[in-house]
Amino acid sequence: MTNSPSSASSPNSPRPHPAPASALPFELQVRYSETDQMGIAHNKAYLDWFEIGRTEFCRRQGLTYKSIEERGYYLVVVEAFCRYKKPLRYDERFVVWTSLREITPKKTAFAYELRTPDRATLIAEGHTVHIAVNRGGTVTPLPADILEKISSPVG
Amino acid sequence: MTNSPSSASSPNSPRPHPAPASALPFELQVRYSETDQMGIAHNKAYLDWFEIGRTEFCRRQGLTYKSIEERGYYLVVVEAFCRYKKPLRYDERFVVWTSLREITPKKTAFAYELRTPDRATLIAEGHTVHIAVNRGGTVTPLPADILEKISSPVG
Amino acid sequence: MTNSPSSASSPNSPRPHPAPASALPFELQVRYSETDQMGIAHNKAYLDWFEIGRTEFCRRQGLTYKSIEERGYYLVVVEAFCRYKKPLRYDERFVVWTSLREITPKKTAFAYELRTPDRATLIAEGHTVHIAVNRGGTVTPLPADILEKISSPVG
Amino acid sequence: MTNSPSSASSPNSPRPHPAPASALPFELQVRYSETDQMGIAHNKAYLDWFEIGRTEFCRRQGLTYKSIEERGYYLVVVEAFCRYKKPLRYDERFVVWTSLREITPKKTAFAYELRTPDRATLIAEGHTVHIAVNRGGTVTPLPADILEKISSPVG
Repeated sequence: MTNSPSSASSPNSPRPHPAPASALPFELQVRYSETDQMGIAHNKAYLDWFEIGRTEFCRRQGLTYKSIEERGYYLVVVEAFCRYKKPLRYDERFVVWTSLREITPKKTAFAYELRTPDRATLIAEGHTVHIAVNRGGTVTPLPADILEKISSPVG
Repeated sequence: MTNSPSSASSPNSPRPHPAPASALPFELQVRYSETDQMGIAHNKAYLDWFEIGRTEFCRRQGLTYKSIEERGYYLVVVEAFCRYKKPLRYDERFVVWTSLREITPKKTAFAYELRTPDRATLIAEGHTVHIAVNRGGTVTPLPADILEKISSPVG
Repeated sequence: MTNSPSSASSPNSPRPHPAPASALPFELQVRYSETDQMGIAHNKAYLDWFEIGRTEFCRRQGLTYKSIEERGYYLVVVEAFCRYKKPLRYDERFVVWTSLREITPKKTAFAYELRTPDRATLIAEGHTVHIAVNRGGTVTPLPADILEKISSPVG
Repeated sequence: MTNSPSSASSPNSPRPHPAPASALPFELQVRYSETDQMGIAHNKAYLDWFEIGRTEFCRRQGLTYKSIEERGYYLVVVEAFCRYKKPLRYDERFVVWTSLREITPKKTAFAYELRTPDRATLIAEGHTVHIAVNRGGTVTPLPADILEKISSPVG
């Protein structure tokens, strides 16, 4: 079974748009300050949510992003993409499904899907690409133990 | 706060990376609150800057984005992409070059380049795609006069 | 993401700095994008957290802020204050304790305390004052049923 | 003469609400992403604008805030207050008037007024209080040369 919180979907419900295998879900809610005068969540808020998605992905792999930085590695964003399918409104709940798309010592890529809590509706999808640098900004390969943890099978 | 295209570079200087022919420049500066603990501008700030770029693009075409909304048309973002080439630091000045990539009654796309004020260095590049909707969120073709103004030759 | 009042501290633990009697707690965590280059949460993030605090306060009083706006009332902020006592770092957990300080048909005030999850340390404290306006921005007294719900004793 | 850009007001116009003597003006414009679904600038945006105000205040005193940090001093915010008098809408221009209210080696306070470009209307007013700390967060008195520059008479 791909993903976890049993509360995220009923076992008997149809899943016309299954989230990617190995994706990890994290539920969020639209903040008032994330809306704009169009009455929907502003496009930049999704990049925050992607960031929270990969933070939680790492945490559940047994590695906080904070601890990666404390060891002197920074995963800077070199590419970000988002396709917005349905608007999100204030106070609406949704789930970010984060999966690891690629990992090498120098480059990591995550994919994201935002879905309604029942999984049925795809709200947005996207990806980010990261390179590993040190505090001074020089490209620095990630050590083996970090690579292994991030890429270990998702429980 | 703004440069006209002609003031942004000396006529005799080499232009190894020319900005797109019809692009309009707008100068900005990194705000403290736009940095994160990595000491560089956060990835989501670029989406704000793209938005400012297209706002100013429309304004110089003789059409404020505000007036488009007042007539009942909203250009919702359906796709956003950014490639980050060089980090930007607090208080650093840069120029957003915005160009119209595509326009039809239902779909508009803008391309962006962020460059150092001397144009020599490409800091980031990206694009956004928009569809026109009405206040209720229904796809609504843009009227001819708005299309014409946005797509008229850039002065 | 949330604690009920009872779960936020053990009943037998000393409470050297008790949160206000009628305050409602809501647990949050510092987002990466909320930090700045000083390595701590930016001062403006606290106003977001206050807003989330009062949103959750209203929700637990049986009234979503969303429903208040749907009925045509907007609680615009006319005053905001925050005293920052301890810095907050990326990924740190904390609890916003929100209490109603004053409510009349035209004016509402909330007080906030940010504390460590064990309640022992006060991180920040502040307040916001709101007036009720209609969609057009005119001051409009809140109806009795909204007033009663917001000001009913906190469970 | 207190404040400068001759363009900020006509010499013959009445000034019913003069900005404080020694305040420095900086013009800004409301970004789309700074609005919320109420259709006005969100309350937290004002703290960004205050920050820009004091950044520009320091710059015009011959001292960039960036250079203060490079010398190892950080002016952390320990108190922030804002009174919101008139809403600000998307694309609206306004001027932040920043003045130094107090400065000692350990504590600095700035006051702010947001006004319409013609100065006639007060949009918001507030203040921030800062203490000087070093990179490790320990309170560290500002050196005499920084104090002198910040507190020198405003040109």
